[in-house]
Amino acid sequence: MPNLYQAQAENTPDNVIDLRSDTVTRPTPEMRAAMAAADVGDDVYGEDPTINQLERRAAEIFGREAAIFVPTGTMGNQMAIRLHTRPGQEIICESRSHILDWEMATAASFSGCMIRAVAAPRGILTWDHIAPVIFKRGGFRADTGLIEIENTANLSGGTVTPLPVLEEIWAEARKRGLPVHLDGARVFNAATTLGGDVFDGVRKLTSGFDTVMFCLSKGLGAPVGSMLVGSKAAIDEARIYRKALGGGMRQAGILAAAGLIALEKMSLRLHEDHANARMIAGTLAQIPGVEIDLDAVQTNIVIFSLRTVPAVDLTASLKAKGILMSAVGPQSVRLVTHHDADGAACRKAAQVLVEELASVGQATASVV
Amino acid sequence: MPNLYQAQAENTPDNVIDLRSDTVTRPTPEMRAAMAAADVGDDVYGEDPTINQLERRAAEIFGREAAIFVPTGTMGNQMAIRLHTRPGQEIICESRSHILDWEMATAASFSGCMIRAVAAPRGILTWDHIAPVIFKRGGFRADTGLIEIENTANLSGGTVTPLPVLEEIWAEARKRGLPVHLDGARVFNAATTLGGDVFDGVRKLTSGFDTVMFCLSKGLGAPVGSMLVGSKAAIDEARIYRKALGGGMRQAGILAAAGLIALEKMSLRLHEDHANARMIAGTLAQIPGVEIDLDAVQTNIVIFSLRTVPAVDLTASLKAKGILMSAVGPQSVRLVTHHDADGAACRKAAQVLVEELASVGQATASVV
Amino acid sequence: MPNLYQAQAENTPDNVIDLRSDTVTRPTPEMRAAMAAADVGDDVYGEDPTINQLERRAAEIFGREAAIFVPTGTMGNQMAIRLHTRPGQEIICESRSHILDWEMATAASFSGCMIRAVAAPRGILTWDHIAPVIFKRGGFRADTGLIEIENTANLSGGTVTPLPVLEEIWAEARKRGLPVHLDGARVFNAATTLGGDVFDGVRKLTSGFDTVMFCLSKGLGAPVGSMLVGSKAAIDEARIYRKALGGGMRQAGILAAAGLIALEKMSLRLHEDHANARMIAGTLAQIPGVEIDLDAVQTNIVIFSLRTVPAVDLTASLKAKGILMSAVGPQSVRLVTHHDADGAACRKAAQVLVEELASVGQATASVV
Amino acid sequence: MPNLYQAQAENTPDNVIDLRSDTVTRPTPEMRAAMAAADVGDDVYGEDPTINQLERRAAEIFGREAAIFVPTGTMGNQMAIRLHTRPGQEIICESRSHILDWEMATAASFSGCMIRAVAAPRGILTWDHIAPVIFKRGGFRADTGLIEIENTANLSGGTVTPLPVLEEIWAEARKRGLPVHLDGARVFNAATTLGGDVFDGVRKLTSGFDTVMFCLSKGLGAPVGSMLVGSKAAIDEARIYRKALGGGMRQAGILAAAGLIALEKMSLRLHEDHANARMIAGTLAQIPGVEIDLDAVQTNIVIFSLRTVPAVDLTASLKAKGILMSAVGPQSVRLVTHHDADGAACRKAAQVLVEELASVGQATASVV
Repeated sequence: MPNLYQAQAENTPDNVIDLRSDTVTRPTPEMRAAMAAADVGDDVYGEDPTINQLERRAAEIFGREAAIFVPTGTMGNQMAIRLHTRPGQEIICESRSHILDWEMATAASFSGCMIRAVAAPRGILTWDHIAPVIFKRGGFRADTGLIEIENTANLSGGTVTPLPVLEEIWAEARKRGLPVHLDGARVFNAATTLGGDVFDGVRKLTSGFDTVMFCLSKGLGAPVGSMLVGSKAAIDEARIYRKALGGGMRQAGILAAAGLIALEKMSLRLHEDHANARMIAGTLAQIPGVEIDLDAVQTNIVIFSLRTVPAVDLTASLKAKGILMSAVGPQSVRLVTHHDADGAACRKAAQVLVEELASVGQATASVV
Repeated sequence: MPNLYQAQAENTPDNVIDLRSDTVTRPTPEMRAAMAAADVGDDVYGEDPTINQLERRAAEIFGREAAIFVPTGTMGNQMAIRLHTRPGQEIICESRSHILDWEMATAASFSGCMIRAVAAPRGILTWDHIAPVIFKRGGFRADTGLIEIENTANLSGGTVTPLPVLEEIWAEARKRGLPVHLDGARVFNAATTLGGDVFDGVRKLTSGFDTVMFCLSKGLGAPVGSMLVGSKAAIDEARIYRKALGGGMRQAGILAAAGLIALEKMSLRLHEDHANARMIAGTLAQIPGVEIDLDAVQTNIVIFSLRTVPAVDLTASLKAKGILMSAVGPQSVRLVTHHDADGAACRKAAQVLVEELASVGQATASVV
Repeated sequence: MPNLYQAQAENTPDNVIDLRSDTVTRPTPEMRAAMAAADVGDDVYGEDPTINQLERRAAEIFGREAAIFVPTGTMGNQMAIRLHTRPGQEIICESRSHILDWEMATAASFSGCMIRAVAAPRGILTWDHIAPVIFKRGGFRADTGLIEIENTANLSGGTVTPLPVLEEIWAEARKRGLPVHLDGARVFNAATTLGGDVFDGVRKLTSGFDTVMFCLSKGLGAPVGSMLVGSKAAIDEARIYRKALGGGMRQAGILAAAGLIALEKMSLRLHEDHANARMIAGTLAQIPGVEIDLDAVQTNIVIFSLRTVPAVDLTASLKAKGILMSAVGPQSVRLVTHHDADGAACRKAAQVLVEELASVGQATASVV
Repeated sequence: MPNLYQAQAENTPDNVIDLRSDTVTRPTPEMRAAMAAADVGDDVYGEDPTINQLERRAAEIFGREAAIFVPTGTMGNQMAIRLHTRPGQEIICESRSHILDWEMATAASFSGCMIRAVAAPRGILTWDHIAPVIFKRGGFRADTGLIEIENTANLSGGTVTPLPVLEEIWAEARKRGLPVHLDGARVFNAATTLGGDVFDGVRKLTSGFDTVMFCLSKGLGAPVGSMLVGSKAAIDEARIYRKALGGGMRQAGILAAAGLIALEKMSLRLHEDHANARMIAGTLAQIPGVEIDLDAVQTNIVIFSLRTVPAVDLTASLKAKGILMSAVGPQSVRLVTHHDADGAACRKAAQVLVEELASVGQATASVV
């Protein structure tokens, strides 16, 4: 009998702290055991018991009729876009949205829709941003088919759209018969900021959306998978588009087994990642050459700017010391905290940041 | 420590023999152990070592530069279609092809291409079928962008396109600068019919295609996954389309670990499935009320017709006795042999078929 | 003051009889005068009085609520396809349909739909052809979004779908909630075969379709233009797709002025073209080396096959004698009668055909 | 013999001055005579002599190999987009571009491309706006397929991109192998601002673009039609997409006859429209309650804002006095001068504007 958990240890060198994204999280030993023991069937026939269990449980947590497992968040978003729109329509979203910048223009190539991007402070779209760019169906210009919200807003630094902002959007959109989809890749991070029961929080933050996509990978640590939840009619329809996109997997219960643990357990510990993010952000805020909007550090993402040092120079020198972060602009660096980088690792990362920035003349500071 | 394999046993009642498709195969204990121990990383960053190993090995077996792992055969085919075509072109394929009948019109909705279907005996397209429907680029009609071959031809009963037929297609297509893609979902079944080394066989049967898709699930038994192989340039491009379709998974090495076993080991045993299929087909051929083209039973698929009994009636009464097959037409039934139904199970299935058909007045026969 | 009609005379050499298609018809003197005097406005604003008059009149003749002018029949068909379908659906039509063979795969690239082609004798699709290829919405295969009929069936030789055949299709489709579109590019030719009032005939042959496209060019002789008719809701929606396809013209009343004459007057003389077609067909039928299905010569199109002479050889030698026809297959030739080739011209064409075929050893015959 | 020009007189009430757009221009008597006498053929077969003449002449004026006639500017732009891109790419353009706001999302639904919109002062995109949003082909985000410039920039008030700005874009794009298309719907207006020979000006302002679309309707006064010019290879390819969009008209020489007059003669008088626009703008600038950027009034378009009066109130009260303008925002009004509104008409319009704004308390002024 092989040691099931040996590989992971070997694969994570002690001297590498990977803060490029929470997508790098590896399955926990519990997830690995569950995957190995998963009860599976052919999910294309609807016969995979573990998939069925995960889909029922996700629907229950979100207080919806149905859910569907998908290999990626991109697929979940694109299924929702096809579901809610007709070709030749516009999708309103914030100007740094994942569906605009990181989904390969699939809204155009698969659904025939154009994106109507609106810039909003900290990536938080409000009804005041949305209302002026809604267009009615007619012969002169493309009409609005869908409003899309991303919460937390990844490229804006993991910011959280407040519940009252969402409530206004839901109410106004409903008046106009416009569907609203949530890219909730990190909606459990958003819910965590509400305090209290995270499942309650998720329900509150998503109750008015027609469909919600959330990721089991990323902060929740599953190796593969996201989910789309909504009404039974919506998810039945989405199932058609999952097949169309090539997402109709067979014995997917293997992945669902890890997904169930991600959903039930890993969802409860995100406040740790948020504390680590705040600690690193606070440290960075002390460094004179660094610009950081501390109020925007609300979840597990930290974006900061360098006054003089090119971002790629910093990430390269950090990499040499075993700390991985991402240059997301000429002077901008992003780091993301997650399960595989605990408090000690994050403190070490902060310390190396301080040293590295000091050595390049960005003055001194200490880990907060 | 949970018993990893307990679940599977519980989930496969002894009295059910599932011959609806080889897609129902469940991962073997060896696969489960490998998945649990898999060395993984973020494959979107190209850092999953098990995925990388599987992609290198698949490329090696097929004698190509590169390979890419995808969650489904449909995604692999649709990536290839986008790769080889421009919107507004035609794809030539046989009239019962998977890309026409079972891929949700994605060739149209994702790549903007129309399918030019040609009926061919036993689903085996030859150059004589293809040549008359090739159209050149011009202002009057859509031009041909791609020729697609399916080997084995699933809906035609798992028939095998002979090597000389392929060689003529490759040569003529090359003369005209037309790409040729193989839907080789079951190309290992096709290669098995050549006798000799199955990897040699696969190389022979695929050497002239621009891209080849094959499935690790289906007959090879992996829970999830297919691959697309080709030149480095083609696979680099395909990687873009995998992301666009939402197939860029994270720690996909979990699945690749099972895929490696499917590729290396399960590929060597398909002759057993073929023998079982021939045995059942031979039995059916003795029953007067059954029509079957024995020469078309070349791999693990058996299609037969009933003179008087509706297909759904037979499959319903078989199901009541724990034998699952598919009605694929008003009078037509399809069964597929695979790893999870061994010789004894297949003999039992044949015996029940004989009894069932006798009881509905289709005369008597005995298992061959 | 220039002589308005001089140009046309110069451009039609007396020794050329162009029977390649009825699309070659040139505007009549009356049409030219009407175009020059047309009352026009900006049709994108709905303010072109001549366009508005033509659209009202077309709706009236077809007994529908609304009509819309389009630059080509292809655009009218493609607007209807977008109107009735969602991406990922199938369109059922006959295997030689214009929308499959001559519209550049736009059903795929603009509407994301696949064509499900069914071969039918003489191109006349009946419910028995359609029923088996209707698929319901679900997760396994693309569902049927639209049934399309072409009447007359151009590439099948201008054959006419009988009214009872249409009535069964309309009734059965309605039961299933499936829309039915008519490509009636030559529906006035079809109506002419009913005898009696041609407008009555057109209404009878189109009453059960959800939308009908017909051409003002072709047999009706307008220089440019087709129309789509249907309910007000359908045409309002179609107007959006006309704009999307780039068909929203400005002072299009110029073209509508000719269109009105085509619709009111030219529609009444098609029996002449039919008589000419029958005369030529009857002549061809006497020639031993010629194969022709006389029963299929129902309107203004004649298709015949040559036993030994390649079609391109015949059309080349005819061209040298000032007679233009089209090779539509290796041994097949198509000719189309129309307003610009009167009885005398058609008799001359028949005579030259007889001589030409005699000279290449296809035996002798005389004009019937 | 009817009076050819009677209709037009009847249709233009003396008391209406239509400044909503230059698209409302009606064909001149000379155009009507030319259309009536046009030498025509079947342009789908390439046999319309007047179309051929117009295409040759347009190519000559622009100093290119080839040109193609299209029914609308939208179709010309969309053909160019398909020509230069692959599905899944991005098109960079200014944020108020016609292809983004007024072409019904066809770049998405027909070409599968997303628009990457960049806001630029006065709608004039420079290389500094473009460079940061160019993305290379790869697996993470959609790559740039095309840069599009609109000159004059319609929705920004008819502003002109200076030649040096264009030259930098052409040079930098060429270095990167990126195609650049011009939406030159009003490029003759742009060229007119250079002074000197307008054909010379057009050549200068378009020499570095891969393809150029310009309109024969709008300021040049033809009833219907635009053109796309470029290399022979580009236009051959564009011809395929024109057919795909349903733009392959038959005896289109009728329209080309007017187009030739638009191109040769009407192109020479645009300075009159510009003078009228400046006169009206200067008048508006004197009214205290009006905001207008006089430096942006460079051609035939005037956009102004009202401090207190809603735009729709002003346009409604102007309409009651026979002056038509467009509300293009809550407080913004656009007027466009053109051939059918001569100096006297424009002075009258200015006078009514002054009176109307005075009556609603926007203070007094006099026509400049």
